[in-house]
Parts: sequence; C-alpha cells; structure tokens
Amino acid sequence: MKIGILGGGQLGRMFMQNAINYPYTIGFLEPDAEASCSIFKNSFTVGDFKDYTSVLNFGKDKDVISIEIENVNVEALKELRNQGKKIIPSPECLELIKDKGLQKEFYKENHLPSSDFYTVQNRNELLNHPQLKYPFVQKLRVGGYDGKGVQIIKNAEDLQQVWDEPSVIENVVPIKKELSVIISRNENGESCVFDVVEMVFDETLNLVDYLLSPAEIDDKIKNVAKDISIKVIEALNTPGIFCVELFLLEDDSVIINEIAPRVHNSGHPTIEANSSSQYDQMLRVLANLPLGDVCIRECSAMVNVIGDPKQEGEAEYVGIEDLISLPQTYLHLYGKRITKPGRKMGHVTVLGKNKEEIVEKINFIKSKFKVIAQ
Amino acid sequence: MKIGILGGGQLGRMFMQNAINYPYTIGFLEPDAEASCSIFKNSFTVGDFKDYTSVLNFGKDKDVISIEIENVNVEALKELRNQGKKIIPSPECLELIKDKGLQKEFYKENHLPSSDFYTVQNRNELLNHPQLKYPFVQKLRVGGYDGKGVQIIKNAEDLQQVWDEPSVIENVVPIKKELSVIISRNENGESCVFDVVEMVFDETLNLVDYLLSPAEIDDKIKNVAKDISIKVIEALNTPGIFCVELFLLEDDSVIINEIAPRVHNSGHPTIEANSSSQYDQMLRVLANLPLGDVCIRECSAMVNVIGDPKQEGEAEYVGIEDLISLPQTYLHLYGKRITKPGRKMGHVTVLGKNKEEIVEKINFIKSKFKVIAQ
Repeated sequence: MKIGILGGGQLGRMFMQNAINYPYTIGFLEPDAEASCSIFKNSFTVGDFKDYTSVLNFGKDKDVISIEIENVNVEALKELRNQGKKIIPSPECLELIKDKGLQKEFYKENHLPSSDFYTVQNRNELLNHPQLKYPFVQKLRVGGYDGKGVQIIKNAEDLQQVWDEPSVIENVVPIKKELSVIISRNENGESCVFDVVEMVFDETLNLVDYLLSPAEIDDKIKNVAKDISIKVIEALNTPGIFCVELFLLEDDSVIINEIAPRVHNSGHPTIEANSSSQYDQMLRVLANLPLGDVCIRECSAMVNVIGDPKQEGEAEYVGIEDLISLPQTYLHLYGKRITKPGRKMGHVTVLGKNKEEIVEKINFIKSKFKVIAQ
Repeated sequence: MKIGILGGGQLGRMFMQNAINYPYTIGFLEPDAEASCSIFKNSFTVGDFKDYTSVLNFGKDKDVISIEIENVNVEALKELRNQGKKIIPSPECLELIKDKGLQKEFYKENHLPSSDFYTVQNRNELLNHPQLKYPFVQKLRVGGYDGKGVQIIKNAEDLQQVWDEPSVIENVVPIKKELSVIISRNENGESCVFDVVEMVFDETLNLVDYLLSPAEIDDKIKNVAKDISIKVIEALNTPGIFCVELFLLEDDSVIINEIAPRVHNSGHPTIEANSSSQYDQMLRVLANLPLGDVCIRECSAMVNVIGDPKQEGEAEYVGIEDLISLPQTYLHLYGKRITKPGRKMGHVTVLGKNKEEIVEKINFIKSKFKVIAQ
C-alpha cells in the first residue's frame, strides 16, 4: 500500500517515526526542501500542496492520500478520488473546515453547539452590520491557523485593526477552560476517542502554554465533550483523525470552537501517554486497520518548545541536561535548523502520577530549557 | 554534535527513530545500500565498516563514533581516537568482545563467573586435547552472532562436524534459564541497569522465540544477575550500552554467557515497556547526557518476526489486522524488502498486567501473523 501525505512538517515527521514500523510505503509532498520530513529519503517530494498539478502528480501512484495540513488543493483531491484513490479525510470535509464560515454553518445545520455568529465579506460590511456589538471575535474565514487570523475587538477604539477580509464574527463567550478531543474514525465507521485534554494559553504568542491530560473536569463534562466530538465526526461522515477544540463555558456548558481534520498539537502527549498515539491512529485509519485501544497509561503534560521572541538564526538548545535528568520526560525536536521568534521548534512531554508532579516538572523545564540563536 | 554509527541495520534504525528527537546530527556507515537505515537521507553512507579507510573517512567529521554491530575495523577507531574523537565503546572493549577467547580470559582475570573453558587453534588441536570430554560447546572465537558459530558436540559421532577454526571449548552446563541484562554507562561512570529479562529459544532457528520482561525469577537471583552485569561493565571500564547475557543454572547460580557491547535484540521491549528505552540510553551515553530512569511501566513480551523457513522473495505480512486488534501490541518491522528463511524481519512487543495476559497475546500472534514471500 502506498500512502501519500500532503504536507511534510513536524506532524508528518512524528507520523513517520511510528509509521515506518508498518509495511507501507509513505511519501510526503511539501514545498520547503528543509522541512521536518526532508530527512526521509525516497519519501519526500518537494512541491506545492496548494497547486493542482503538483498534487495530482504526487497522488497518481498512491493508493491513499491524506494531509498533515488543511491548506491543500481540494480540486486535485477530488480528481484523484475520481481516479479511484482513497482520500482521507474527504475533500468535502476539507472544504468545510478550510472555511470557518462554512464550518459554523455546518454546526448550526447539525445542531452542534457553537457560539452565535454572522459572516461578513469585508470591513465595511462589518462596521455597518446591524448585529455589531462589543466585544466580538473576528476570525478570517480562510488561512488562519495556530491562533493567527483570530482577534478580539473590545470596543470602538479597536475598530481600526479590523481586517478587511471575509470573516466570521462571533460573540465573546465566557470561557472557563479550553478543551480538546482527538478522535479517529476508520472506513468501517468504527471510531476511537482519546480522553479530553485541557489547555492553558500564553496570551503573548497565542500558542499552547501547557497542556494537561486528562483535563481536570467532572466526568459529566468529559462525557459531554466526548459526545459532542463523536457527533461532529459522525456528521462529517468521513474517515480520518480529527481534533475537536471545545470551550467549557462559565455555566459548565460545552461548545465547539473549531475542528482540525488531522493530527494536532494537543495530541502530542499521546505518543508516550497512550497505548496507541494519535499518529498511530492516523496510520490505522489510512491503512483501514482496526483502531485498537487508546487507553491512558499515566497523567501527562506538554509544553511547546518555542523560538525566543527576540532571536533568529541557527537553533541552539540550552539546558538539555536539566531537562533530560527528569524522570519520564520526553524531548521532541522537529529538526528545524533555524529558530525564529515564536516558531514551534519542538515539544516536551512529561508523565507522572498526578497533576502536582507533572506541573512541577513543567515549571522546572520552563525555567531551565530554551531555544536561542547561536 | 555529530554522531557516527558503524552499521546501519535495524538496531540503527530503531536508535534513529528516537534520536531524531534530539538536536544532534547522526550518520550511519553501512555496506548494504538497502539496509534498514537507508531511509534516512543525509544520514546514510554506503561503505564497509570493516575497512580501515572507509571507517577513517566516515569518522573524520564526527565528534563521537559508536557501533550497532561489533564486527568493525578497530584499528581505524584507534586512529580516530588519536585524532581526538570519542569512541564509544572503547576500541579495546570491541577487541575483547569480538574474540570469544579473549572475552573468556577477561572473565577469568576479573573473577567474573563463567563456564570453564579452553581454547584451540584448529580441529586437530581440539581432537587431541587432553581436556576433551563430551558433551561440549564449540564457539568460533570470531565472527559468530545470533547463535551462528556456536554448536554442541554431544559425542564422538558428532566430531565430524567440528569446525577447523580457532575456537573456545566450554563444558555444557545445566541451564535452567537464559537471562539478559541491558546496562548503560556514561563517561562520568554513572550506570543504569534495566530489569532482568528471560528468553525462550526456538531450537530449530536458534533465535529468540519469545522474551519475557521482567524475568520470572526470585529477587535474590535478579540482584545477583544485576550485580554481575554491573561488575562486568565496571571491569570493561568504558562508556557504552551493553547486553550481558547470562545463564541461570540448575543450582540457581548465575554465570555469564557473553556480552554484546551495543543495543541488543533482548532490549527491544524497552521501547514501549520502559520510561527510557535502550535506544534512548544509547543516545544519552553518546551525547554524555544524564542517563535518567529506566523504570518498567508494565510486563512485556516480545517475539521476533522471522522469515518463513521455506520462502524467499518480496516480503508480505499476513494477519496484520489480527495483530493490530490486540490492545497494547506493537509491531516493529525493519523495512527489509526481501524475506529469507530465518531472516529477522521485525519484532512484536506486547504489554500487559501479568504473564498470563501477555503470553496469551504472544500465542495468538504466533498463530495469526507471519511473513511470507509474495
């Protein structure tokens, strides 16, 4: 079986670290010749996954085509499907998720809980919209990721920073916690749900600050979060691996923030903390294998390794001895030669018996370990 | 830091699967252009690790040079050490271990328990040796591995199959169990001992049939096995990662069978069963990092995936769905295109709460999963 992945960054690299244990041939299509997956010989094609012809050519000798980034040429995937290839997730699912406006409509149509919204074509339409009230969230319909393309407009003074692009406008909701559920589904409709994880964000860089698994929430809320996630995936009606990002509100209700139709940053701890990781689930989905079990072995927490906000150049890692001396602590660097302000260079997962133990390790790591330019 | 590894087979591949998480540059020297490590671009040099010039050229831009096979050019490693490179393990350790005669002398000199022996230069010397008595074990002094180069001569009728090469001759000892200890040691003399594992052999192919971790033996015997292993490594007086293979005799005494100065087949289950695997320990030793902890998470067992004894050709794996449907079951194929009778194509590790659970899984796997030629 030949599997093709559009994108060849760190998600592809972590997928491949596990996937080479199986008897399948895997290839990545990626424009950056130095990307994280470029270390895999005969598995790395330099090319643009946004370009129709590049994707078509890449896919022609593959049996299954999937993604590790959403922002791909969907028309080419439709044509490849016409040629008899399996596309996972479906091109329609990708179309839906690439456009945050369609994504919101989809929740509404399927009675899936999400915050109220309206869409606008441009700045002018927004400023004159009858439903305009402060504060609100502006999300670009296409192209946003990792918190980019999302901003909160607090009051009329902030209006100058409004983007002049097609956007989703949402009310600001009273968020108690950000939750995340990784869920896989194979062609037989069998699905496998990971336990709910919880995120704490760094407000400056808007990247995950640290991630706690399992989330510290009532079982009742956990079940609600899992149920919503299962309903989302059933409504999407495609095999794949997904991350359903959720908000727990002050009134303990749970609503959907957004979906990623792929492995996700918040699933990194599953590599060590679960019996089958999100990357292993992805492989199983693509090869249409039984999904197996994804039980949690221990509590875990994860921090991203982020480029120093003031440095750019050849990456150097400081404090690796301190980090490595901690028990059950796992460094994952993504093989990026150059560090830039805020660039995700890797992550660290820690396991432990309880929250206190792992948060103590996380704090120690944050104080000792960093990436700088040489 | 640039790390060079002599050999690029499956042990190197599993090392690399973990090592790419760290910020070091790694290269392999390997004569087979299709070997397991050949998938790693810019990290794979085709060349003969037995050849002086090849090893010298390979090592000249490296900071640390190590091995994943013993059978390498030691003179070149000595020269590289003269040039200021770190060689792990030391060339002297490799010389000692490559020659089973020197290895046995070393145990004797260091008062380390091992079976009685004498050495002979050839068949003639053996047949006329005053200590000759049946049954005995003949081991080639150099070149044996994976059970090859070892035979038992039961009686005078077997004498025709005696090898005409420099050999170690040992008495046959009454073996109750075969045990194995993986142990790492860094430059600071810090060492880290994995729990004792136990092996059951397939008498036909003389390869590990299944491996059980931890071994089912008294704590007292475990401690003896670990103590002997620590003493061996201290006597070798070099950083490295080692496998000390031991025999538990009928009288419950423990003796050394032999040492491998590298990661080892019997350490494969540490990938999933221990908080830091033998491959992670190897990386830590080479980068002179703290060794961390290697605590066991759960019981484990491992079977090799061996080429069908009657088939040769492009490998095909039968029963992968059955295997994958078992919880906490991990397939590791080595990326070998061609299966041959008895060839190690991969391994499967299973985790579980107790021996009954994991042995049941192992038996199921053996009945369902196999490698054949297409």
